[in-house]
Amino acid sequence: MEEILTTIPEAASAAVGLDISVNNVWLLLATFLVMFMQPGFAMVEAGFTRSKNTANILMKNLLDFSIGSLTYWLVGYSIMYGDSISGFIGNPASNFAFNVAEDSYGAGYSDFSDLMFQTVFAATAATIVSGAMAERTKFNAYLIFSLVITLLIYPVSGHWTWGGGWLSELGFIDFAGSTIVHSVGAWVGLAGAALLGPRLGKYVDGKAKAIPGHNLAYGALGVFILWFGWFGFNPGSELAATDGSTSAIARVALTTNLSAAAGAITAMLTAWGRYKRPTLSLSLNGALAGLVAITAGCASVSPFGAIIIGTVAGFVLVFSVEFIDQILKVDDPVGAISVHGVCGALGTLMVGLLAIDGGLFYGGGFKQLGIQLVGVVSIGTWALGTGFLLFAILKATNGLRVSKRIEEEGLDVYEHGEGVYN
Amino acid sequence: MEEILTTIPEAASAAVGLDISVNNVWLLLATFLVMFMQPGFAMVEAGFTRSKNTANILMKNLLDFSIGSLTYWLVGYSIMYGDSISGFIGNPASNFAFNVAEDSYGAGYSDFSDLMFQTVFAATAATIVSGAMAERTKFNAYLIFSLVITLLIYPVSGHWTWGGGWLSELGFIDFAGSTIVHSVGAWVGLAGAALLGPRLGKYVDGKAKAIPGHNLAYGALGVFILWFGWFGFNPGSELAATDGSTSAIARVALTTNLSAAAGAITAMLTAWGRYKRPTLSLSLNGALAGLVAITAGCASVSPFGAIIIGTVAGFVLVFSVEFIDQILKVDDPVGAISVHGVCGALGTLMVGLLAIDGGLFYGGGFKQLGIQLVGVVSIGTWALGTGFLLFAILKATNGLRVSKRIEEEGLDVYEHGEGVYN
Amino acid sequence: MEEILTTIPEAASAAVGLDISVNNVWLLLATFLVMFMQPGFAMVEAGFTRSKNTANILMKNLLDFSIGSLTYWLVGYSIMYGDSISGFIGNPASNFAFNVAEDSYGAGYSDFSDLMFQTVFAATAATIVSGAMAERTKFNAYLIFSLVITLLIYPVSGHWTWGGGWLSELGFIDFAGSTIVHSVGAWVGLAGAALLGPRLGKYVDGKAKAIPGHNLAYGALGVFILWFGWFGFNPGSELAATDGSTSAIARVALTTNLSAAAGAITAMLTAWGRYKRPTLSLSLNGALAGLVAITAGCASVSPFGAIIIGTVAGFVLVFSVEFIDQILKVDDPVGAISVHGVCGALGTLMVGLLAIDGGLFYGGGFKQLGIQLVGVVSIGTWALGTGFLLFAILKATNGLRVSKRIEEEGLDVYEHGEGVYN
Repeated sequence: MEEILTTIPEAASAAVGLDISVNNVWLLLATFLVMFMQPGFAMVEAGFTRSKNTANILMKNLLDFSIGSLTYWLVGYSIMYGDSISGFIGNPASNFAFNVAEDSYGAGYSDFSDLMFQTVFAATAATIVSGAMAERTKFNAYLIFSLVITLLIYPVSGHWTWGGGWLSELGFIDFAGSTIVHSVGAWVGLAGAALLGPRLGKYVDGKAKAIPGHNLAYGALGVFILWFGWFGFNPGSELAATDGSTSAIARVALTTNLSAAAGAITAMLTAWGRYKRPTLSLSLNGALAGLVAITAGCASVSPFGAIIIGTVAGFVLVFSVEFIDQILKVDDPVGAISVHGVCGALGTLMVGLLAIDGGLFYGGGFKQLGIQLVGVVSIGTWALGTGFLLFAILKATNGLRVSKRIEEEGLDVYEHGEGVYN
Repeated sequence: MEEILTTIPEAASAAVGLDISVNNVWLLLATFLVMFMQPGFAMVEAGFTRSKNTANILMKNLLDFSIGSLTYWLVGYSIMYGDSISGFIGNPASNFAFNVAEDSYGAGYSDFSDLMFQTVFAATAATIVSGAMAERTKFNAYLIFSLVITLLIYPVSGHWTWGGGWLSELGFIDFAGSTIVHSVGAWVGLAGAALLGPRLGKYVDGKAKAIPGHNLAYGALGVFILWFGWFGFNPGSELAATDGSTSAIARVALTTNLSAAAGAITAMLTAWGRYKRPTLSLSLNGALAGLVAITAGCASVSPFGAIIIGTVAGFVLVFSVEFIDQILKVDDPVGAISVHGVCGALGTLMVGLLAIDGGLFYGGGFKQLGIQLVGVVSIGTWALGTGFLLFAILKATNGLRVSKRIEEEGLDVYEHGEGVYN
Repeated sequence: MEEILTTIPEAASAAVGLDISVNNVWLLLATFLVMFMQPGFAMVEAGFTRSKNTANILMKNLLDFSIGSLTYWLVGYSIMYGDSISGFIGNPASNFAFNVAEDSYGAGYSDFSDLMFQTVFAATAATIVSGAMAERTKFNAYLIFSLVITLLIYPVSGHWTWGGGWLSELGFIDFAGSTIVHSVGAWVGLAGAALLGPRLGKYVDGKAKAIPGHNLAYGALGVFILWFGWFGFNPGSELAATDGSTSAIARVALTTNLSAAAGAITAMLTAWGRYKRPTLSLSLNGALAGLVAITAGCASVSPFGAIIIGTVAGFVLVFSVEFIDQILKVDDPVGAISVHGVCGALGTLMVGLLAIDGGLFYGGGFKQLGIQLVGVVSIGTWALGTGFLLFAILKATNGLRVSKRIEEEGLDVYEHGEGVYN
């Protein structure tokens, strides 16, 4: 407790190798870029939904980041990276209320930088959910959800992988979190969206009706911001910038960018072919699909492999959105489940095909693909299961969905007392 | 004069230690992030005001940064950091029209980087004022003000502290400028807003009426941008990234983020309790309140202390906005006086309580608290006094406020000849 | 082929000097900032045009970056930086489908970082064109154009200069690309806009009518984003951050910022004098004019020289916009030809006057000015000529302009099947 309250950074001024300082500047830069993805998500989600619910969606984005920043610092980080209890969960007491007297620099950068970098990742997983559950969720239920996902759901499966747990020992490859971050958010969102049911007017006589977003310029701005932030997300996940990492971070930036580009182009062409028009909304989501999909393999595939991954993701995205909307009849206003869930899983699996070291196409056999499948399924099951449990409990106790009247007139006025536009 | 006109950077290519280059990259990164706070302020102020005055508020934000960039380079920097004249003001001739033939690197980074970093800080102080005086100030008066604050008001009190003047010798702690930057802007803004009087229709029969902003989505985007930029503002103020600073910059990022998060959550809860609704506008300002308040103590308090500071700031913010609006009857359209002034002062004072090294709660007695009070009061008096003087002179000569007709129909068309929306 | 498909970054983990790692982090930071200029351009172009064409302009910005990212990686980079064929073009096979087994670090940073940095520059040249040809160009024609400019037009003249070709040997100075990047985009855009003809309703009885943009708040946000991104564009073009570059990158940031500030102020004052109002639209374009103009000389002029360049650019901009609109009668909806073409050429020529080392005003005679003129004219001729040829072919085959009905009702619905606002 002493340490929690009284240490100051000057206490940590032992001689520090310059390579550690370079790594640290890089990691902080990446942290800031990932943090900046928050307004990216906020603008995408606000733009793809209706103006009567804009204050609500912005509040969710502001508050999930705020709540996540506190909970992940308090105990989430410990559960993810603390001393492993049988490979399944970190000891919550390991770094409770994270504050060290002296930076160890053992990992090649400041421990505080690591906490910050991991915090913004946790917040990313959380914020994906708000899109899938948009325009009908009770605000207080969302606050409770934000607390639980950053405190428990994300850190536990994160421990299995980045925390050194069982999936990591198995050899699961998910470099920057296609599955560990993006799919976790998406599957929890799927559970929430399914339990909520569709928005009023979404399905008429069993047929899906489009409910267009109120400002796709926000959506475009948001996607560009996310693309920018992804240069922190993926290259930053190298966690270093010196020695061999000098080249690696640049190469990860390249594969990330190529996949995003391929995703945007392919989704545009696919929409053009299928719906006779190259639509902005699907092209934007195509770029995101490419970004999510390459996140797992950005450090293990070739540039050409990255283009394949982005192309497949952009193509599948269009059909996935249609399938979830029209066949599954789950109402996901921003397409988050397809972008982050389906393309996240897809990208993770494709590492088993395209990883230069061990992928099927490179003569590595089915082993890595099998491991990837185990990771996708186990983390998916965890996220979907705990998400379902959480939202079911909320539904039974606090209530999950706003009343019909609030939904019709807009969440902004009733839930927040003010609209966004005047 | 020779030097001003003819030196080029290649002239400064002496051998440079690698640690200096790392510090320098860090300082430039921080500079760019702080510069990016300008659109953050622009979007917040545009969003929280009416659409008929949007071109005007955007022009102010563009021009105060432009004017400040020139004046601070020309002479503001010298007044702030030049050879001290009795600890009260720097010699304006010290670095007039800043341009050195050879970088000294004496401070551990390029002198040009220092100029740039300090310039974007000066512009931040200036731009805070435009919000408090929004929707009724004559544009040409604002241009003159921008010149005076970056040339004189901000550099003089800046010299007392960061320039090595009397407050610095006293032991005043304001790491990144809760008081030195934010409160200076706010108190000058208070003087201006008081001299201007409230907007037409703001007070009807002595009662304050809410005049809602036209686009809180801009407001939210702006706050996220500011939060992002603050990672340059606070961690960048360490002015180094090597040795002990490796850990310190990461820790400052952590305390900054925790306080912002606590500010947003607390303001939301306070609004929820007091007005029955968790409003977006107060939650956004709560995040800013937490950011402003932690700016003074971000390097001297614990993470837990940072949360306390953000919590207090978020709580006080709500009542401060109400007090200024309804009791003081000063019309501050965006809440800048509460956010940057009240919470800036509060955060600076709380360093006297929570600084691990010397704070009251850590057994340091009342000494540091007393010093903090001296700093807050003296700088506040300086800013309020010179601001009042400046605006009183402008009011008596050029005029400070637009005519009733222009205010009613909007400043955009009359002052700028074009509206923002078509 | 082996190498293209199979190398991974870990293969490049030879011992790397720490100075190289620092340069590399700097170059990647700059790359990310320049990439972020894409939403800057997107918001400027969307804001300065009408709401019925917003999805179209956003699509163009998304797709030119996506297409450019692929083509420049595939072969554009090789044409620009590959083994020179007589100083006129690089060998396309040199780095086809760029992917090296081992980073050479010969230039002081990762080869992959260089590819990324150059890619975002190529995309900048491409995206400038979309503004000049806005609101009437067929979408599929624009996609083909995006491919050709990043594959051929930009890389070839880029080879003459940055690729070590004949203009570079002549001593042409264009540090970060006033001419090489910005003017190339603008002259190609001029060819396109001229071949397209003006928008319906732009000229009535031979007189130009203003067609105001639909949201100048987007325009302001875009300009601030561009200003921010320019700190990657110009200081990043030093391609290093250690030794003498430590000071140089900071100084380039200073000259860049001073010129932008001077451009904004001067354009505002010029508009004030000429049109009786300080307009937002011209002030914003004035900042961009200052940024474009200083890009050539940012590393070779003094801070005072930078202010002169920005001032001249801001002044000329206002008359250039008027001249192109009313005398030349070329319809350039966002003023791209004036900002990037005229001010780019102007800034490049002024290096011949103000370069401390060799400029006319510093006793260097007319030699450098002559070389600058050769560069501006030859690259201008190349860009205008190939742009004209390309668009003439597109016009004769695919068609360049949408039908009257589509233009009247908006490109969004007809070309993309969805509007931006609902």
